[in-house]
Amino acid sequence: MDYVAPVKAIHLALDDVAGLADDIAGGLHGELDPELPAHILEEAGRFAGETLAPIDREGDRVGARFANGTVTLPEGWPAIYRAWAEAGWNTVDMPPEWGGMGLPVRLATACMEMWTSACMSFSLGPVLTQGAVDALELHADRALKEKYLPKLVAGEWTATMALTEPQAGSDLAAVRTRAVKAEDGTYRLTGQKIFITYAEHDLAENIVHLVLARLADAPPGTKGLSLFLVPKFLVGDDGTLGARNDVWCTGIEDKLGIHASPTCSLAFGDNGGAVGWLVGAENRGLACMFTMMNKARLFTGVQGVAVAERAYQRALAYAKTRRQGRAAGASTDPSSPIVAHPDVRRTLMTMKAMTAAARAIAYAAAAAIDRARHARTAGEREEAERLAGLLTPITKACCSETGVEVASLGIQIHGGMGFVEDTGAAQQYRDARIVPIYEGTNGIQAIDLVTRKVLGPGGMIAEATIAAFRSIGTTAGAIAEPRLRLLGEVVVEAADALAQATAWLRAPERTPEELLAVATPYLRLFGLAAGVAYLAKAALAARARREAGDNDPIHADTIATAYFYAQAIAVAAPGLARVVVASADALPAPSSLSDFAA
Amino acid sequence: MDYVAPVKAIHLALDDVAGLADDIAGGLHGELDPELPAHILEEAGRFAGETLAPIDREGDRVGARFANGTVTLPEGWPAIYRAWAEAGWNTVDMPPEWGGMGLPVRLATACMEMWTSACMSFSLGPVLTQGAVDALELHADRALKEKYLPKLVAGEWTATMALTEPQAGSDLAAVRTRAVKAEDGTYRLTGQKIFITYAEHDLAENIVHLVLARLADAPPGTKGLSLFLVPKFLVGDDGTLGARNDVWCTGIEDKLGIHASPTCSLAFGDNGGAVGWLVGAENRGLACMFTMMNKARLFTGVQGVAVAERAYQRALAYAKTRRQGRAAGASTDPSSPIVAHPDVRRTLMTMKAMTAAARAIAYAAAAAIDRARHARTAGEREEAERLAGLLTPITKACCSETGVEVASLGIQIHGGMGFVEDTGAAQQYRDARIVPIYEGTNGIQAIDLVTRKVLGPGGMIAEATIAAFRSIGTTAGAIAEPRLRLLGEVVVEAADALAQATAWLRAPERTPEELLAVATPYLRLFGLAAGVAYLAKAALAARARREAGDNDPIHADTIATAYFYAQAIAVAAPGLARVVVASADALPAPSSLSDFAA
Repeated sequence: MDYVAPVKAIHLALDDVAGLADDIAGGLHGELDPELPAHILEEAGRFAGETLAPIDREGDRVGARFANGTVTLPEGWPAIYRAWAEAGWNTVDMPPEWGGMGLPVRLATACMEMWTSACMSFSLGPVLTQGAVDALELHADRALKEKYLPKLVAGEWTATMALTEPQAGSDLAAVRTRAVKAEDGTYRLTGQKIFITYAEHDLAENIVHLVLARLADAPPGTKGLSLFLVPKFLVGDDGTLGARNDVWCTGIEDKLGIHASPTCSLAFGDNGGAVGWLVGAENRGLACMFTMMNKARLFTGVQGVAVAERAYQRALAYAKTRRQGRAAGASTDPSSPIVAHPDVRRTLMTMKAMTAAARAIAYAAAAAIDRARHARTAGEREEAERLAGLLTPITKACCSETGVEVASLGIQIHGGMGFVEDTGAAQQYRDARIVPIYEGTNGIQAIDLVTRKVLGPGGMIAEATIAAFRSIGTTAGAIAEPRLRLLGEVVVEAADALAQATAWLRAPERTPEELLAVATPYLRLFGLAAGVAYLAKAALAARARREAGDNDPIHADTIATAYFYAQAIAVAAPGLARVVVASADALPAPSSLSDFAA
Repeated sequence: MDYVAPVKAIHLALDDVAGLADDIAGGLHGELDPELPAHILEEAGRFAGETLAPIDREGDRVGARFANGTVTLPEGWPAIYRAWAEAGWNTVDMPPEWGGMGLPVRLATACMEMWTSACMSFSLGPVLTQGAVDALELHADRALKEKYLPKLVAGEWTATMALTEPQAGSDLAAVRTRAVKAEDGTYRLTGQKIFITYAEHDLAENIVHLVLARLADAPPGTKGLSLFLVPKFLVGDDGTLGARNDVWCTGIEDKLGIHASPTCSLAFGDNGGAVGWLVGAENRGLACMFTMMNKARLFTGVQGVAVAERAYQRALAYAKTRRQGRAAGASTDPSSPIVAHPDVRRTLMTMKAMTAAARAIAYAAAAAIDRARHARTAGEREEAERLAGLLTPITKACCSETGVEVASLGIQIHGGMGFVEDTGAAQQYRDARIVPIYEGTNGIQAIDLVTRKVLGPGGMIAEATIAAFRSIGTTAGAIAEPRLRLLGEVVVEAADALAQATAWLRAPERTPEELLAVATPYLRLFGLAAGVAYLAKAALAARARREAGDNDPIHADTIATAYFYAQAIAVAAPGLARVVVASADALPAPSSLSDFAA
């Protein structure tokens, strides 16, 4: 087995960074059995390691295949999908009213991490279905919910989010798909969508598309977009499947990675119009999409964590068995396992620390979503919502970049074997590369962070968050143990650098152009400060557990990982703050990028 | 055409960073016509853009195919290879005695950059052949040279470097291939080699393998390796091809990238022994390989520059045509080309500045090789040889990492289209990933830099080089123009950070373990300081050209690129110096990396 779900590390991150045990004890999740998370993580991790991990390489080799309007996934996938859904795994944080378990988003996040580590291509279908469930639950009318939600929650049917068109990627204002109201109150859609994940497959008997389209009299731009539910098969009032709807898959993309996840082109209305139902109000489609964006982007970021975790496991296993050269101070063996070479160990620790930091950030964002939903007071919920909004773009961008970088380091550990497809390391490098792109490119995330989250209404949540980071640093810095003290100092330094960069953003003389020019380094800086602060939080908790008599070696490991992250990675924070405040004027005008010479 | 050779930028880098025009004027290259470099660059660039660039995508799609011991390259490749060789392109810096043009290594480096940008898979065959020519010229006896060098120099035959075995990658001490002396003075080789580039193909009628093998009575380890010439077809004294030798390709690898470059497994001696000729002395095989290592590693680094350049061109072209969203301050068009968005421009500038810095480092290394060969005095040649030795691992590692990072950014510019194989951006991300691995992994480069080049004999070349960087910074810092002044300040700061890290390495209390633990960040720091210093040198020259009345806009571009590199990238130098001095103790013992949890 080449992936073993890191259940213990994940559970500690949930409790010690993301406060899950405390929140359960405090009643945030009602009567939730405090023993249940361990059980869920154990079983979800078992499914990941035993059932999903083994299909990953073959899924990449075979890929999804398109012929005559249908898509076939690799052999065995339909049965595995059904087993996964029948075990209830589609329902972890879904509403009990529709058959869900109603568990914390944090737990669903951790489960999704493990399934994605095991097989990213498999996990993407459920991610899309869950996003659609969230949108329908919040915005659809009762009749639509009753007809669709039980099937979608159970995973009997799957769903898509059909937004992108050739001319409308990051820019949804350019969406052209049309909707016309019919006499019976439904709509007829015509248009083309591209890049639609799992829009056609053989895993489930029906596929429910949530489609952004434009009514004839709608205003231009994003204020003229409405959201429609367009099922592959029409559904009778008794829930039985009826006629085939006029929406067809016209092809799938030949992609760099996630080969078994079909990326479909869809044609709506080539034969008169696809029947659709309005979700939410007319011309409010984008708002309906936005309400589910935090979780969708969180889950996307988690894909980066997931790929990184598996790349680390694969690299570590290889480094322990592959022998090359004799390490300094090794015995008289002619060669040592390469893990004995310090440079290899630095690479492995870089992978491990980056993965742990990314996981901590993602789980902290998930905690904020839980609290935004369930905290007792409206004020607490609002504050948590603001924090979730702040951490979401950071999670999506930083975790996705971690996935790419750690997967690349994983290839490096394998040497020449890493470049050979059989090893699997190359697949992860390919799979990881989509994550910085979809669900809002990382550039869009950075712009969202700066313009909406920090400089928008409620943006002082940034300063409050930085203060919380600094407070973690101060606590660690006051501890006599030298490594915790140094760790705390780096946390404070990173928080100070971030505060300085934030103050620069807020200065009244800033132009929009300047702010947009430094959004990406600002987001990276925020991620660095968050990563080291959350790892320090985990280290402080690990120390407390040890002092309470818990001798599990993982606690020493947590402290060592946080210390490495501080000394080898987070010390870049002051330099990044300088990039934020000093590099905007180094950006040439578009016309200066006019020659072909680098 | 999607690649246009940046001849002007390359020529300026050769003259203004790598001192080519000055060296020609000073007589380093004999009677070389000072107009010739421009002509060579123009023609080599034309071949790259017109003939090689168009075959790159199809070469990736079709790949090299193996069947029944033979390898077939994509259709049309043999004719294109012959056209390339017949134009004399294999011979640029090869010895005139054997039919070469005898031009500067700098020029050959620049030509190789352009051919590699156009089609990396194509360029790798010639790279291997040229390495073999260098080795034979230095170490083979006269008879071998006369029989093989004219054909290899002309490119009629190609060559390989057959070092790696399954158990012997970075660790050549583990080579097991055996050689036994026959009565006629030749040798019989038996063994298996893997990962041998272009060891079988249909481009040329003969293939000459240079093989590391071990004589029966040889000492263990690398001191028992000898180098042998093993041709695919035996060659008669009249130069005609004779019997097929007992060396066979047993398969090629299914790789992440460079699909059209066959990566072969070779079996020697399955039918009694492959006939080989000794090159150099018995048991001195590794020394023979080492003498050509600087150029081989330089050319490998250049592959990173080449991929980066093409990725930048592709991304820039896309950013100018793809329209999404309206940029701040744009006209009333509903959408702007994405190059108008500052975050996209930051990404493009990052690609451009990293590429320019990598090119400057590589060309500076090539200049040192030229001077090591041709400088008037032995002292100058020795000093240049030391500088070449210092810059080689930096070039190989930093330029290869630039290739990977810039190719990844190139995907990002394309958004979802970048993840689709048709665009070509994904191919570059795949192709680039081998460069940090082969010809000595980047970890090996870092260890070479620290232990042999900085701390080995003659290692004060590091301090001399840092002083030269600082001097460039001081010159720029004294200029009244604010951007040059700030650029100079960053150069001095980076040089100071590097000097501090170098002093730390030299401290007598350092342990081998500590030095190996920080070799990689030290190499990165050196690359950052070199990159900003050489770009500042280019910027100073650009300013001088402008002051002399040359109004080509490329000079403003050179200054802008250097300034961006300083403000957005090189300010990381002090942070990296802290990583060098502070992170060695954060590396856990191998046994602490014993669990599966990141």
